[in-house]
Amino acid sequence: MNDRAYALFEEQQTSRGIDINKAKEKLKALQIETPSWGYGDSGTRFKVFQKIGVPRDPFEKFDDAAVVQKLTGLCPSVAIHIPWDKVDDYDKLRSHAEGLGLKIGAVNPNLFQDEDYMLGSVTNSDARIRRKATDHLLECVDIAKATGSRDLSLWFADGTNYPGQADIRKRKGWMLESLTEMYKAMTPDMRMLIEYKFFEPAFYHTDLADWGMAYNLAGKLGDQASVLVDTGHHAPGTNVEHIVAYLLDEQRLGGFHFNSRKYADDDLIVGAINPYELFLIFYQIIEAANDANTGIRGCSDNIAYMIDQCHNIEPKIQAMIRSVLNVQTQYAKALLVNLDEVHAAQEAQDVMAAEDAVRSAYEFDVTPLLHAVREEQGLPLDPMKAFRESGYYESVAHRGKGGASW
Amino acid sequence: MNDRAYALFEEQQTSRGIDINKAKEKLKALQIETPSWGYGDSGTRFKVFQKIGVPRDPFEKFDDAAVVQKLTGLCPSVAIHIPWDKVDDYDKLRSHAEGLGLKIGAVNPNLFQDEDYMLGSVTNSDARIRRKATDHLLECVDIAKATGSRDLSLWFADGTNYPGQADIRKRKGWMLESLTEMYKAMTPDMRMLIEYKFFEPAFYHTDLADWGMAYNLAGKLGDQASVLVDTGHHAPGTNVEHIVAYLLDEQRLGGFHFNSRKYADDDLIVGAINPYELFLIFYQIIEAANDANTGIRGCSDNIAYMIDQCHNIEPKIQAMIRSVLNVQTQYAKALLVNLDEVHAAQEAQDVMAAEDAVRSAYEFDVTPLLHAVREEQGLPLDPMKAFRESGYYESVAHRGKGGASW
Amino acid sequence: MNDRAYALFEEQQTSRGIDINKAKEKLKALQIETPSWGYGDSGTRFKVFQKIGVPRDPFEKFDDAAVVQKLTGLCPSVAIHIPWDKVDDYDKLRSHAEGLGLKIGAVNPNLFQDEDYMLGSVTNSDARIRRKATDHLLECVDIAKATGSRDLSLWFADGTNYPGQADIRKRKGWMLESLTEMYKAMTPDMRMLIEYKFFEPAFYHTDLADWGMAYNLAGKLGDQASVLVDTGHHAPGTNVEHIVAYLLDEQRLGGFHFNSRKYADDDLIVGAINPYELFLIFYQIIEAANDANTGIRGCSDNIAYMIDQCHNIEPKIQAMIRSVLNVQTQYAKALLVNLDEVHAAQEAQDVMAAEDAVRSAYEFDVTPLLHAVREEQGLPLDPMKAFRESGYYESVAHRGKGGASW
Amino acid sequence: MNDRAYALFEEQQTSRGIDINKAKEKLKALQIETPSWGYGDSGTRFKVFQKIGVPRDPFEKFDDAAVVQKLTGLCPSVAIHIPWDKVDDYDKLRSHAEGLGLKIGAVNPNLFQDEDYMLGSVTNSDARIRRKATDHLLECVDIAKATGSRDLSLWFADGTNYPGQADIRKRKGWMLESLTEMYKAMTPDMRMLIEYKFFEPAFYHTDLADWGMAYNLAGKLGDQASVLVDTGHHAPGTNVEHIVAYLLDEQRLGGFHFNSRKYADDDLIVGAINPYELFLIFYQIIEAANDANTGIRGCSDNIAYMIDQCHNIEPKIQAMIRSVLNVQTQYAKALLVNLDEVHAAQEAQDVMAAEDAVRSAYEFDVTPLLHAVREEQGLPLDPMKAFRESGYYESVAHRGKGGASW
Repeated sequence: MNDRAYALFEEQQTSRGIDINKAKEKLKALQIETPSWGYGDSGTRFKVFQKIGVPRDPFEKFDDAAVVQKLTGLCPSVAIHIPWDKVDDYDKLRSHAEGLGLKIGAVNPNLFQDEDYMLGSVTNSDARIRRKATDHLLECVDIAKATGSRDLSLWFADGTNYPGQADIRKRKGWMLESLTEMYKAMTPDMRMLIEYKFFEPAFYHTDLADWGMAYNLAGKLGDQASVLVDTGHHAPGTNVEHIVAYLLDEQRLGGFHFNSRKYADDDLIVGAINPYELFLIFYQIIEAANDANTGIRGCSDNIAYMIDQCHNIEPKIQAMIRSVLNVQTQYAKALLVNLDEVHAAQEAQDVMAAEDAVRSAYEFDVTPLLHAVREEQGLPLDPMKAFRESGYYESVAHRGKGGASW
Repeated sequence: MNDRAYALFEEQQTSRGIDINKAKEKLKALQIETPSWGYGDSGTRFKVFQKIGVPRDPFEKFDDAAVVQKLTGLCPSVAIHIPWDKVDDYDKLRSHAEGLGLKIGAVNPNLFQDEDYMLGSVTNSDARIRRKATDHLLECVDIAKATGSRDLSLWFADGTNYPGQADIRKRKGWMLESLTEMYKAMTPDMRMLIEYKFFEPAFYHTDLADWGMAYNLAGKLGDQASVLVDTGHHAPGTNVEHIVAYLLDEQRLGGFHFNSRKYADDDLIVGAINPYELFLIFYQIIEAANDANTGIRGCSDNIAYMIDQCHNIEPKIQAMIRSVLNVQTQYAKALLVNLDEVHAAQEAQDVMAAEDAVRSAYEFDVTPLLHAVREEQGLPLDPMKAFRESGYYESVAHRGKGGASW
Repeated sequence: MNDRAYALFEEQQTSRGIDINKAKEKLKALQIETPSWGYGDSGTRFKVFQKIGVPRDPFEKFDDAAVVQKLTGLCPSVAIHIPWDKVDDYDKLRSHAEGLGLKIGAVNPNLFQDEDYMLGSVTNSDARIRRKATDHLLECVDIAKATGSRDLSLWFADGTNYPGQADIRKRKGWMLESLTEMYKAMTPDMRMLIEYKFFEPAFYHTDLADWGMAYNLAGKLGDQASVLVDTGHHAPGTNVEHIVAYLLDEQRLGGFHFNSRKYADDDLIVGAINPYELFLIFYQIIEAANDANTGIRGCSDNIAYMIDQCHNIEPKIQAMIRSVLNVQTQYAKALLVNLDEVHAAQEAQDVMAAEDAVRSAYEFDVTPLLHAVREEQGLPLDPMKAFRESGYYESVAHRGKGGASW
Repeated sequence: MNDRAYALFEEQQTSRGIDINKAKEKLKALQIETPSWGYGDSGTRFKVFQKIGVPRDPFEKFDDAAVVQKLTGLCPSVAIHIPWDKVDDYDKLRSHAEGLGLKIGAVNPNLFQDEDYMLGSVTNSDARIRRKATDHLLECVDIAKATGSRDLSLWFADGTNYPGQADIRKRKGWMLESLTEMYKAMTPDMRMLIEYKFFEPAFYHTDLADWGMAYNLAGKLGDQASVLVDTGHHAPGTNVEHIVAYLLDEQRLGGFHFNSRKYADDDLIVGAINPYELFLIFYQIIEAANDANTGIRGCSDNIAYMIDQCHNIEPKIQAMIRSVLNVQTQYAKALLVNLDEVHAAQEAQDVMAAEDAVRSAYEFDVTPLLHAVREEQGLPLDPMKAFRESGYYESVAHRGKGGASW
């Protein structure tokens, strides 16, 4: 049945003018970084539920990540979080990763879990605390050098809970000051990805509250700084794909933290709540890449795709596999948009036809395509099923409860 | 200056037709319950910051609550949370409270911090877990008997994170089943207050997601069940005072959990973000009470006012004092609405005059009135200042860090 | 290619345990009412754009609706709006409709376009205006008798723009009073569908602001009253399918007004913004219907599916065709959910499997199934293409601009 | 009573360290521009209610605006909208205005009420329409020259309703192209104020959706371009005062369109829904101005305060008077913030004291201060009362119904 399904799919897409081999090529090149902390326990302020077999140290996190990579072929790198993944010997961690077919991805500083940072880290009115925070950022640059990481991925919990609590404009200046120092410490091949967030844990104002603030800051720092879009960090109703298109056009889209939200920063499995939005994000990226190839101003291709979720009730590895498969599915669908058709309808100002040209690609079932790609890559056709049948959980049950949490 | 200010205020209000003595009487009767857990450490999923001198057990929580009551005269009762405030001997706790001039208020069951409740408590598809949850509810009824508490205040974290995760309608039935059993166990003078919440910690669906679900459930249970409105538990933009008016009209408003929100369930100090909303809530209550007195269908007077916040960065006792003072302030302002004037404008369909009649009461500075009331009650004129000068924090510094957290 | 696609689809679904013939049967029984006003010009407060060929009277609206029915087979009835569709002789309108293979659907009163209703219709503090509004409702009952309509579909723009503007509780009473009178005038086979709306055109409070208020009102009126869910009438983030499940369980879901929203009551083509939500709504309906068949308490089957959009920039008939096709598509997908699989995973508390069982049905491409159904019904396989090639717009170009608007 | 109230107020503020004369001076310098279209009929998509006595042409609009200025002393200039206020002879309009003690304020182009602009004006994919739109912008620059207006205030309805409908990045480029041409046509003393809007009338994407897009565009154009903040044009929960502080720090805050919102762009009377937000906006402005005076980087003082509301049910002139009085009230309160006290608490990281220093200023009743200012300016103490008793409506009743609408 799979063969017939694929044959039919190929025929169907070819007749629509889609180059199926090019689509396959793109799919094989897709890389989605998973975060080390996504393998540990996580929760809400009400409760962190503890799973059996959760990794107890950075090395075990890489072990788990290797399973995801082995089964999906999508996740060759793993983001680390400092100090959660701090080790004495980064060469050892790097070797461990490489032995598993992985590399160390983005380095993520942590500026929110120290008592000192209660009222801000790089934006704290206390110069001593700002110094401490900046030193941590510099430390992370050093770690990135040691791990061979290209990207430094920055999220700040900094903000205030009450009107008047702090001077918003001074904090803005302090953040620029601190990041300028960090920026200068980076090697020329490194990138600083600046994340923004609508709210939480700050409940009145967040120093980097939206893409505009992150973008403006990146512009002041230089070309190695760009914006990281976390899909869950927006006000209700925000058109995320518009922001993506905007940043692409400005050459300042550095990467993504993927996850799903219905309410706030729910941090659910990406693609589980409104999968069409994820498809539309990829449609913008693919269109911009296409324009770049045809000489029209467009995006850089260096977009880091990363998972960043807080899947609380789900088994961690399954949650990760589902996440990356969902990303792959929506990316595959977006590759089926016939851009010529879209553009022709746009030029003709035919609203119905233009909308249809995009939506109809979404309505295809890309399973035959993904099966073909996986088969050609020697991967299990159904990575989730393969995992559930693998007995991996049993094999790590000896880790017990109480492993790492973020 | 205070005397002249009060004289002027009284003259001003009297000339507007406000009976200042009646307002004072109402203010002296205002009671706001504080929650035991509001004196302990709290935080977000990112970090719980630990304060020095936080109470280490239920007895010390009452000690702290007594300070608030002593300085404000507004908080004679304290809500307890089971199992956080579980003690071997409730008589002892009761005596301790009474010795401090306090009584034990609402009993709050906890159905969200046990590993068993990860996928639901009273709505769990596992009958064993539902039984366990119901037993806990029954235990709380027993504790209420022991503590002499009238109100059982129920909040359920129950819900799901994904479409399909559970059967929404079956869960609805299970909740009714469980609460019916609890309802029957209550004595005739007890009340069940049913809280609802838009989201969190459940991120797809919450079993009791809005007032309508809580109200409908209360109706099925009987007259001793009513709705508890937590001011932070609504979708963005929701008109909370409308819901309050609606429930008043249906005689099903059981009480409030007060706090402030700008984004989600931010749980900030009540009155700190949009104080006008709090004023408008009291305006609805006062108007309904007025109607009831004049023979028009209106509200019962048994509305429990309770603080329920998660003030994370603030010193706990100060946060509590500020909260109850803010409630008192907005209540005082609402007492200055000249209802006759409002009604006359409403009858005349004079939109501008009707709006003005409400808003103009809000614009008065009620400090002279509150000073007068406090003076008559033998309370410090500025309870916050009195607390900050009291040296209380120093006196409990020996408790150290790492006290109770919720 | 179509035949092979269908054969493969059938094989695939059969192997999943889906009864494809039953699904076809359900799809053939699907009926979606289109609204007469959806064929006229509409717009925003900023501009109503005028289309060429828009119908000039109720008869021409039915002409257009007949085209949609002829091409899709989904829309045998048309809702009317009074006074927009007021005619001297309803027998004539009825004959005209029947001659086109249509029947007259729900009757919709209009209580928002008369100067008298500026401050409310049935909730106006002026008894004369309430009388006038109630008389209009009674008139609509009479019209429903004349047109043979079963459903009276009520939406009220009533609300206020400012705190204090009106007495919320009195207005609540007046609405009940008015609808009680209307309810009594209905014949036993009639149904009153009560719609709610979060906001707009009222910007402070809306008398029927949410499902809870509509539901409570319906309960007071009697069994012939139920709730109408307009998919665009909710606060940001609201879980609409939860409300649907809730109302199904209470046997009070009367029907839908379908449309899409990203921000407010955007009134875009249904299924164009978040199609997964539409699928999940149908999943709840199908599951409840399944339970009803198996003896478990479930829904009535009398759910009226209606389109109610304000497609402003789109050609009207195309917008309507796209809308009903989108509804059909998501309904078809929902029919592919293997409920046994869902229930087994739910019982096993296997979150990943349960979510997967629902989402995976959504990921199928139902085109082969819909093609088969259309072929069996003698309909064009691609109704939109058939319409665009039909020359219908040219045939009505003589109507010119300036036709009916709502 | 007024004298005693003022004496007490002055004593009270002086004892707090507030320079009451400086505050009075600031209040006397406050200017709020009213919009010509705010005197005409307006409504929602459901209905425009017609008032008696609404102005029939631009000259009569200035007559009405003159009444507001005469009674409040706050509104010496009036914004005009082209083509609504297009006249053959702008000298005549200018003389008319000057004769009334008014001047012509910002010129507002209209790019949303022509059939051509249905799919965009300056971002339309049709070059002819872009040309037409740009020509209109250039025409407005010419009108500004004729009227002596400094500010060109730009709001674009441009956007799309569906994914795929248009190329977001191309539209971005077209907008820059058009505004660059307009920018070059401006004289060196002119300013371009660029407004953004979250949504409406576009329901999928709006070309200038947030402050970041407007800010980035202004930066590309040059120093004469800045951002206009409409208080109602944000996503739910957005911290508007944060954006204000941010733009102040970047020297790119050009002005405001004031109004109130609870849900979307409700366009209610400013200060009627959440007055504390308006106060907090002014607190940011005053603090930045203070910093500028003390040599710290801060804001320019050229912030244009403008009303832009769509008060539908209210009598127009009363709505305007209430609006400007509400702005004045919140500005007056913000002037009472003791900045030294705020800064001391911020430095000490005393969250409670810092919040208190801001909020406590808000709680003062500034009526005595405003009365004093009005008395010194020879204005009626209560401008609203003065208007309601003036008989002005009667004097313009001969205008009848059906006057100008926007």
